[in-house]
Amino acid sequence: MPGLDFWYSIGSTYSYLTVMRIGDAAAQAGIPVRWRPFNVRHVMTVQNNIPFKDKPEKTAYMWRDIERRAGRYGLHVRLPAPYPLPELVLANQVAALGAAEGWGEAYTQAAYRCWFEAGQPAGEDPNLSASLQAAGQDPARVLAEAVSDKTVKMLADATEEAMALGIFGAPSFAVAGEIFWGDDRLEDALLWAQGKR
Amino acid sequence: MPGLDFWYSIGSTYSYLTVMRIGDAAAQAGIPVRWRPFNVRHVMTVQNNIPFKDKPEKTAYMWRDIERRAGRYGLHVRLPAPYPLPELVLANQVAALGAAEGWGEAYTQAAYRCWFEAGQPAGEDPNLSASLQAAGQDPARVLAEAVSDKTVKMLADATEEAMALGIFGAPSFAVAGEIFWGDDRLEDALLWAQGKR
Repeated sequence: MPGLDFWYSIGSTYSYLTVMRIGDAAAQAGIPVRWRPFNVRHVMTVQNNIPFKDKPEKTAYMWRDIERRAGRYGLHVRLPAPYPLPELVLANQVAALGAAEGWGEAYTQAAYRCWFEAGQPAGEDPNLSASLQAAGQDPARVLAEAVSDKTVKMLADATEEAMALGIFGAPSFAVAGEIFWGDDRLEDALLWAQGKR
Repeated sequence: MPGLDFWYSIGSTYSYLTVMRIGDAAAQAGIPVRWRPFNVRHVMTVQNNIPFKDKPEKTAYMWRDIERRAGRYGLHVRLPAPYPLPELVLANQVAALGAAEGWGEAYTQAAYRCWFEAGQPAGEDPNLSASLQAAGQDPARVLAEAVSDKTVKMLADATEEAMALGIFGAPSFAVAGEIFWGDDRLEDALLWAQGKR
């Protein structure tokens, strides 16, 4: 049975819903998940895909839709959250390091909680230090490594890999070469991984 | 129990899925539906919301996603369908007349079938005449009325009403002032209409 790659960027609004629920949903489906942070802003800029800037009607709807869906998932949000994130790149360099070292999921969940539930932008303090501590990491050590050439390249390589797969937004799910886009396609992606096509 | 207004434009790709399944889904949920054609192209132009033009990655995904979802719904599509539709406005003026006269649903389903299953663009022949005949209408009579001042105003008024509701794309569902966007939100909209919030 193929696994599922969960491609996300801290900074994507709908990724909040997936970050908070993919663990349980995938476990129930029996599908292993790899968390794959990438720089969705770079992809969307390259592809001229700007969904919310200067689109107040669509933006207002996005927050309301997330609020309703969060309610159905039992999540308590305070919306709209600060958006867009000034420190999106750093937030995801940290996530890339965390994915390599095994604490990416815990950090990402904590960062989204601070951002969507307490109104603290991800990628900067107080969110950043609190999320790293929640993931059992030393902020000073991580911040030094997160801006190193090695980690910068790690995130850039992941972003290139995402684009090569045909990914254009976040969250996306990749299952054996098949791409699913949006928190609302998580169930489709899990069914695909189970061979129910 | 509030009803559900189904706002759509012939020309919207994802509306195909809803057009083919909303009848059964709403009947199962016990929710009455009004079919409300509008000019989504006008709304999206006004709001600078251009989802697919010059976005080949997103466009390729859209067709694949519709193909997969159509398969799950038991629909047989031949994709990509011709897109965008040159005669979107006429297609929806006819739909507006049909909604007023009671044959809008039958015409719309036939027009989408010809478009998505036989590759014939909606709003022009052979699709237009065939869809009107499938809806029990005389094409010559309908085409004359569809371009009359009265019908042109009917579609323009519906489009203004949609924008006033906060609608920015199609398909959308309106339930007691609450807006849901996308075929994938039909279930959420029906639950909302049932009071399950």
